[in-house]
Amino acid sequence: MSAGKDAPGGPERPNAALTRDLGGFFAPRRVALIGASESSGWTRLVLAGTDLSAGLDDVVLVNPRRGTVHGRRAVPSLDALDAPVDLAFVMVGPDHVADVVEQALAAGTRDFVVLSAGLGEAGPRGEERQRRLVELCAAGGARLLGPNVSGFVNATDGVRLFGLPVPDGLPAGRVGVVMQSGGLATHVLGLARSWGTGLSLLVTTGNEAVITATDAIGHLVDDEATDVIAVFLESVRDPVAFRATALRAAERGKPIVALHVGSSSLGREAALSHTGALVGDHASTVAALEDLGVVPVRSIEDLVATAALLGRHPRGLRGRRLAVVAASGGACELIADAAEPLDFTLPPFAGPLAKALVEEMPAFADVQNPLDVTGFVVKAADLPFTATRLVAEHGSDDYDVTILQSVVLPAAPGPDEDVVRARFGRLAQAIRDSPVPVVLQTGAVFALSPFALEIVRENDLVILPGIAAGMNALDGSARYAELLPRALRDRSPVAPVTGGTVSGTVSGTVSGTVSGTVSGAAASELERLLVECGVPVPPSRLARTADEAAEAAAELGFPVVLKVISEDVPHKSDVGGVVLDLRDPDAVRSAFEKMLAEVASRLPDAVLDGALVAPMRPAGVELLVSVINDPNWGPLLTVGSGGVLTELLEDVVVRPLPVPERDIPGLLSELRVSRLLGGFRGSAPADLARVAAAVHGVQRLATTLGPELRAVEVNPLWVHGDRVEALDLLVDWAPRPEAEKVDSESGTQ
Amino acid sequence: MSAGKDAPGGPERPNAALTRDLGGFFAPRRVALIGASESSGWTRLVLAGTDLSAGLDDVVLVNPRRGTVHGRRAVPSLDALDAPVDLAFVMVGPDHVADVVEQALAAGTRDFVVLSAGLGEAGPRGEERQRRLVELCAAGGARLLGPNVSGFVNATDGVRLFGLPVPDGLPAGRVGVVMQSGGLATHVLGLARSWGTGLSLLVTTGNEAVITATDAIGHLVDDEATDVIAVFLESVRDPVAFRATALRAAERGKPIVALHVGSSSLGREAALSHTGALVGDHASTVAALEDLGVVPVRSIEDLVATAALLGRHPRGLRGRRLAVVAASGGACELIADAAEPLDFTLPPFAGPLAKALVEEMPAFADVQNPLDVTGFVVKAADLPFTATRLVAEHGSDDYDVTILQSVVLPAAPGPDEDVVRARFGRLAQAIRDSPVPVVLQTGAVFALSPFALEIVRENDLVILPGIAAGMNALDGSARYAELLPRALRDRSPVAPVTGGTVSGTVSGTVSGTVSGTVSGAAASELERLLVECGVPVPPSRLARTADEAAEAAAELGFPVVLKVISEDVPHKSDVGGVVLDLRDPDAVRSAFEKMLAEVASRLPDAVLDGALVAPMRPAGVELLVSVINDPNWGPLLTVGSGGVLTELLEDVVVRPLPVPERDIPGLLSELRVSRLLGGFRGSAPADLARVAAAVHGVQRLATTLGPELRAVEVNPLWVHGDRVEALDLLVDWAPRPEAEKVDSESGTQ
Repeated sequence: MSAGKDAPGGPERPNAALTRDLGGFFAPRRVALIGASESSGWTRLVLAGTDLSAGLDDVVLVNPRRGTVHGRRAVPSLDALDAPVDLAFVMVGPDHVADVVEQALAAGTRDFVVLSAGLGEAGPRGEERQRRLVELCAAGGARLLGPNVSGFVNATDGVRLFGLPVPDGLPAGRVGVVMQSGGLATHVLGLARSWGTGLSLLVTTGNEAVITATDAIGHLVDDEATDVIAVFLESVRDPVAFRATALRAAERGKPIVALHVGSSSLGREAALSHTGALVGDHASTVAALEDLGVVPVRSIEDLVATAALLGRHPRGLRGRRLAVVAASGGACELIADAAEPLDFTLPPFAGPLAKALVEEMPAFADVQNPLDVTGFVVKAADLPFTATRLVAEHGSDDYDVTILQSVVLPAAPGPDEDVVRARFGRLAQAIRDSPVPVVLQTGAVFALSPFALEIVRENDLVILPGIAAGMNALDGSARYAELLPRALRDRSPVAPVTGGTVSGTVSGTVSGTVSGTVSGAAASELERLLVECGVPVPPSRLARTADEAAEAAAELGFPVVLKVISEDVPHKSDVGGVVLDLRDPDAVRSAFEKMLAEVASRLPDAVLDGALVAPMRPAGVELLVSVINDPNWGPLLTVGSGGVLTELLEDVVVRPLPVPERDIPGLLSELRVSRLLGGFRGSAPADLARVAAAVHGVQRLATTLGPELRAVEVNPLWVHGDRVEALDLLVDWAPRPEAEKVDSESGTQ
Repeated sequence: MSAGKDAPGGPERPNAALTRDLGGFFAPRRVALIGASESSGWTRLVLAGTDLSAGLDDVVLVNPRRGTVHGRRAVPSLDALDAPVDLAFVMVGPDHVADVVEQALAAGTRDFVVLSAGLGEAGPRGEERQRRLVELCAAGGARLLGPNVSGFVNATDGVRLFGLPVPDGLPAGRVGVVMQSGGLATHVLGLARSWGTGLSLLVTTGNEAVITATDAIGHLVDDEATDVIAVFLESVRDPVAFRATALRAAERGKPIVALHVGSSSLGREAALSHTGALVGDHASTVAALEDLGVVPVRSIEDLVATAALLGRHPRGLRGRRLAVVAASGGACELIADAAEPLDFTLPPFAGPLAKALVEEMPAFADVQNPLDVTGFVVKAADLPFTATRLVAEHGSDDYDVTILQSVVLPAAPGPDEDVVRARFGRLAQAIRDSPVPVVLQTGAVFALSPFALEIVRENDLVILPGIAAGMNALDGSARYAELLPRALRDRSPVAPVTGGTVSGTVSGTVSGTVSGTVSGAAASELERLLVECGVPVPPSRLARTADEAAEAAAELGFPVVLKVISEDVPHKSDVGGVVLDLRDPDAVRSAFEKMLAEVASRLPDAVLDGALVAPMRPAGVELLVSVINDPNWGPLLTVGSGGVLTELLEDVVVRPLPVPERDIPGLLSELRVSRLLGGFRGSAPADLARVAAAVHGVQRLATTLGPELRAVEVNPLWVHGDRVEALDLLVDWAPRPEAEKVDSESGTQ
């Protein structure tokens, strides 16, 4: 089940080699605005805000009909220039885009940003326009961002080529941003401005006709000015390249934070039609991203806050033990309420730390974690800083991060400006001196005042905006540290079961009849293979007569189950082909006759081979274990609540293969159903090593069955103390697109 | 199980009658700041920001040691004044508070705000100080806010008496706020300022020595200037009064939105020590609040946003069908992702609406819901307003609210200021004309610019801040409309089963032996009562010998269960006193002997009466149904997943009694386990009317068992198609505080 030559991820783009190196693209010195006009809001926006355009030597306006635009000289076409511009920013109507690019290529320009909409996202006619554009770029060796894009803001080099408003005073910094939505990019810029989060480069990628989001991320991975990468993803168009890029980032320890949309069915529909891209299944994509060390977030606010925090502490948090210093009991409670569902703990202050805090706090304050320094902070503004210093001095082994929520960020410089500045200077020093991260958090989501932003910048502080986004940023930061070792693990594939005859026979037999049903022989082969891969199954016997069935049952031990065996019956239970819980030989005989008669009456043409007799297992914990071959991300292991709980709980964990066997108990512990694995109603706890071996065995079976496998699913994997058995196996091959699901139900009940 | 004279809610406060009417308290004309000093930050803060103090004629500073404070004349004490002030704002040390209040009372002042900390929240010494203060108030007929309070901001009348910073330019408006945390109150003020949410009155209540949060809420319910009430609650100290106040608000159609902390165990601990108040169980409190029509929210941001929206649309949303107009595909996807878990739907645009939209939108825009008007909005700023108008004209039957997310709020007045103002004027008109609410939403959580705030104020717009808080506000608004009819329902208590002998016998027998175990006779009585209340139980027989047991089993039908019967065995299964799934007479005989021997060997002193024989029920859906008597809120019905799922799922719905029988199917549908009630794995769907009758029967049993009942729990309530039976009953009386749980297990397995 390794990737075929085209899948996952589809074929290589025609000029992928060119866009893999975007050096120079985002730092042009001379640019042309093609389609600049007096009436265009875009022209106004691109020309506005010179504070971020210091890196541009020259902006040439191109308008075939007017010599002056917005009071600046315009040329009729690029031909009129002595030397080619470094980059052309194209804002003409969709029908003219390709012509304009063709002319610019002829004039020697190789880099393009195309703002124009109405191409690949706009039906067959637009797709045709975009196809022509891509062909031109491929032939001319051009790099092109867009179409249907807002452009980019390069705060590091002072180049702002952006078709939407950019807030004044956007700070330059070390967070790189890649957005598959231009409209949301303006919100990212706004939040960065409000919270003092410095950006290096923000890129919107639109239709990704040539340069993809992955290309832009790759550029930021290599960019010296960028410490962390924030990404808004609708769909990953080139999963193979994305995987390589994300792993390169992981190896360099440069965190990537991603907001991926499509968690709802509604969202998937919206994404489909808005971008012309197929949004893959959200859960699979999140699993694939996490597997590559990419931190998932769920809102624009969390995206910016998490990136800002990881930019400051690029290794993430080493754990989830919080020390909290706040100036209100209410804030303490809200933080505690927000911490618990994210698995953060608030270990009590103890020993020398508690003693030191008691000495420094006002008599009426309770010294506990979270610490409320009380309204007394109005009188003693240094109190929270003192508390922070004491936590750093005495608690660095016991806490992984300190949240400082009691700092009042000044709205404006007052008469005590020097005192305030000095106090924040001391705070910044205390933060630098602290062996564990100290993060400032506001009590609610505010925009910082210009004076507060100045203090933040001067002291290189990171402010987490409010309790919800602040806690989510801490969660993302801890998650990065958890994910990174997994991303960097040995990814040698799970070894398939060798022995040519077995895999030859099975895949031959089964794929031969895949759109019908699995023959008894193939089912037995599959079952044998399953066992060989390390997944036990209950014993069973094939019985051709009622007496044989009764004999088999006596041999296996009562109670038993009976299942009809026939190549012509794909879904046994739908036609009365399964009978459970037979307690004695007479019951088995009678059930055998009745069952075969029932199935024969419902499916008169079916050839019935007889019935499988297997022992009925008592109630145990039922798991679902499957491997599906995701079209984008390749084989994904899913483990979850099985049996009737499957639909009830939506309790699953998804991980791309290969999952090391030693990681499987940890994966199981993420499930709700794991509470039952610990033993319930007096039953023995499950033997987790055996469960892990069986789960690993399902991965191994999937690998053994080869790349044509679409899905293999064991449900339930029955667990009862130290007994673990697959009670039902479903295998789905996809050699032909029209192939139906095949329910082999080997050794099942 | 009706409220006793003290419970729930505890005794009436000494001067509750006085604080029930707070008329004039928040609008004093002459106030004294007692303890005003040069060095005090509080003094500076209270004297700052005259823009909200226009309603104050005179502020007298009182300082016994200095004649001038902050450049203003100070008097040594209130005695020096000709006439008493309307209100004294007390900021002296905790040891002096009572003296100062005593003097002020003598000088004729009756209203107090006490900012000083170190009283009731600060250990036994502080409690003693507070006790004296309360006695003085009771004797002197004084109304007192605090101690340990920040004060209040009355934006309607221009009185700001507040010990923390208040942002400049806080708009006056129609949202009233009551906060049990002063520190968080500053954040509410900040958010209101950032988002243009106008406040009428904000009150912090601190230790609530005299005036409680409920008193302040009651004041706002009657306040003509207030349309909606936002509350931050740590604990409700006077549940009886709170209930009456909340129902008064519901009757008047004035929404209350509440942020209640304590969802985490950590939060409960924090609240305990920070406020000296016992935070009740969060889930019970939320259930009780919802029952009174109070809308629960989970963050400060959601509190302000939801109150702002309900202030504009006080009836809430009539449903959850969204029409969305946004200017970015990414925003559409984020809204869709946020909408689904909140049960909002996005019905497609169809018919005349779709036709009209197609005509108005650019050719390359997809006309669908959510609608992305695309970046074209930069060129055609009226596009979203047009779309909104069309939805209002053609879609008012199909949508319950329109989200308008594409409006760019201007940062500053530009050359096109008049155009912008006119455009927003048209928008405001379109919103007023729309039969369904139209809400503006920003794409991320921003502070509005002063110019944007001016436009918001001029046009009386409500801006929802960002997608998460915005969707949560819509959720709260829809929730209010859902909760209100429930709050206003007939609350006649569930009728108990009458017939003196029954209830007499049972409560007599059981409470007589409550700290031991329930006798066989009492268990039978309880079972009979359960059946009489409308909850079926499986048939059963008491067997005294193995042969009797086998005979009973044959009569009842195999398989059966056996349970030991003895007054001396409270927990049967712990001592081998339960045997399941016996299939034939021999098995029953043998199990009977073995079971009694086993129990006798473990409990040699127990007198064993024999065994109960009952039929073994096949697998079905298992529910938990209980009524617990909450110390604050009285009897609460809980329905949830039963059996082994109880601990696995945390799948419960809690509702205060009485729950009308006709509401129970709706309540069941809120459970995850309801998916199984619809039928699973081919089983018949449950007869919901029978399930509802059984749930109602448990309420009836609770009412019948009277006020001393602590809890009654049926788990599992077994449901199998149209068969519904209580398989286990647990009753817990509390006539004496040391009473233990009693497991009557009547008719159980």
